[in-house]
Amino acid sequence: MRAFRKLALGILLLATGTLAARAQDPLPSWNDGAAKKAIVDFVKTTTTEGSPQFVPAEERVATFDQDGTLWVEKPIYSQFVYCFDRVPEVVKARPELADVEPFKTVMAQGREAIAHLSHEDLVKIAMATLSGMPVEEFREEVRKWLASARDGRWKRPYTDLTYLPMQEVLKYLRANGYKTYIVTGGGQDFVRAYAEKTYGIPPEQIVGTAIGTEYSYGKDGKPVLTKEPKLILDDNYAGKAEGIDLMIGRRPYAAFGNSTGDQQMLEYTKGGGGSRLAMLVLHDDANREYAYGPAQGLPDSKVGTFTQQLYDEAGKAGWVVISMKSDWKKIFGFE
Amino acid sequence: MRAFRKLALGILLLATGTLAARAQDPLPSWNDGAAKKAIVDFVKTTTTEGSPQFVPAEERVATFDQDGTLWVEKPIYSQFVYCFDRVPEVVKARPELADVEPFKTVMAQGREAIAHLSHEDLVKIAMATLSGMPVEEFREEVRKWLASARDGRWKRPYTDLTYLPMQEVLKYLRANGYKTYIVTGGGQDFVRAYAEKTYGIPPEQIVGTAIGTEYSYGKDGKPVLTKEPKLILDDNYAGKAEGIDLMIGRRPYAAFGNSTGDQQMLEYTKGGGGSRLAMLVLHDDANREYAYGPAQGLPDSKVGTFTQQLYDEAGKAGWVVISMKSDWKKIFGFE
Repeated sequence: MRAFRKLALGILLLATGTLAARAQDPLPSWNDGAAKKAIVDFVKTTTTEGSPQFVPAEERVATFDQDGTLWVEKPIYSQFVYCFDRVPEVVKARPELADVEPFKTVMAQGREAIAHLSHEDLVKIAMATLSGMPVEEFREEVRKWLASARDGRWKRPYTDLTYLPMQEVLKYLRANGYKTYIVTGGGQDFVRAYAEKTYGIPPEQIVGTAIGTEYSYGKDGKPVLTKEPKLILDDNYAGKAEGIDLMIGRRPYAAFGNSTGDQQMLEYTKGGGGSRLAMLVLHDDANREYAYGPAQGLPDSKVGTFTQQLYDEAGKAGWVVISMKSDWKKIFGFE
Repeated sequence: MRAFRKLALGILLLATGTLAARAQDPLPSWNDGAAKKAIVDFVKTTTTEGSPQFVPAEERVATFDQDGTLWVEKPIYSQFVYCFDRVPEVVKARPELADVEPFKTVMAQGREAIAHLSHEDLVKIAMATLSGMPVEEFREEVRKWLASARDGRWKRPYTDLTYLPMQEVLKYLRANGYKTYIVTGGGQDFVRAYAEKTYGIPPEQIVGTAIGTEYSYGKDGKPVLTKEPKLILDDNYAGKAEGIDLMIGRRPYAAFGNSTGDQQMLEYTKGGGGSRLAMLVLHDDANREYAYGPAQGLPDSKVGTFTQQLYDEAGKAGWVVISMKSDWKKIFGFE
């Protein structure tokens, strides 16, 4: 009887220990492996007082690309879907655009038109659909659209398509005093409209491709900031490192990306002294998400490239590649 | 004897009470008056749960002009002194400038040249002296300069010339959950070099006139961001409201300025709903600091104007004017 009690107690302690260990795992959706270990080691090394690589709290900055790094970017960036969905409204307000390309094609084909449009055409559509309104009105419109729009594959709001393992990284870093920033090629104001709710990242921590505003007075005499089709920051490639310096003024200690547009951000991060973490998400899971990039031999995306060269660079530069297929137990929170 | 004890106890309690009240006064360098009351009332109204004007913690943003609002701006902005002091070094590196205006005049007259230079000339000098070097090197140079440079009147480092009452406002707002930002017409990178130490404001909370950077690789193959003479944000007048939207993405609840360059920031702040605080520092104390602006009938500064119109606007718009002479018990911490 006593032996039985001891055994029962032992099992209980073991079970409690395992539960406690699980409860303490900050990255439960990650499989054990090099990627998870790199993140945990980085956090421990940089936040343990007395560690030679200790980073003071105020300098703890981590930057995240959004499309393809924090949420799904295929078949096209959701911001482009938003822009395409807005074209009819813009043409209604400016009927002269109905016969002008690329608006004519979009009016005829809707979202399907993306296959026929050049990068320049996409920029034209973005500029026309993302400017001309007060900033508050724009953000309200984006929120309304996000509440009703559904993606084609999962039939869910786009904001459901964030990667659970990356949400865990965001929270884990913040719990350890890191300020998390999004540094996106997407529109700064577009992402600001939902990032606080979706990622826990406030507007002042969103760096993105930015157009200007113009200050004027409304009919009630109150000031209005109207979005203008004037590019201030192209937050891609070298623009990501430049944008980080402009908006944050500190070099990140950790950076996460997935395409050649993130290369300079990762280089800039690793270029600092001490312990720095640079990670690259590899989309190699066609079943649960998408497979594209070097391993798949698929053609590059129109709006981002995922070349063999980039992944070769990762090996040389000490960036850690995250395999969606083998590193992530779960991909989405709704699974 | 018992009565005496009671009296002694009463005095003791009274004294303790007064000390406690003093210790609790968040603005000890302010005289009681409309300005101090406006600040305290604003903080109480916006941070007391259940108050109809309660502001959630994440939305608490307060913006401060720097020159003339947080520190002395006369006889000229200290950043211009820095630029003038750097001209010989720039001319040494680029000898062709020695015979070109405005560099020729500055080489001959030093800081005195300011009296003879147009605004365009000042911009030329600023662009030449504030660009061409890696960002880290620039900030290090500014820190070195600040450590040795002394102002002409008090013979002290420029960073000693911050206004103690405004330092108290910064701390008081932060203690109540406000994020404090500097929104300056001065150079963003210049102010970032010392703002954390001088004001407790980190680089990511400095919005200022900004030039771009260019990303390249050094001899060691590591990325370098070099400051380029290319204006990205002119953070004056309407540019202050536009810069706040670009860099912060939230409308401030409180804003502090002192010149026409701050007018749009104050308007934009007051234009939001709920309780908003807009304040204007009036330099009316020639003995302890300087007296300029409407009350003094002095000519406007070359690089900022303090018109009667601005102060008339204050009355109409509900901005609160801070009189240095009557509202501030002490001006500097070293007094």
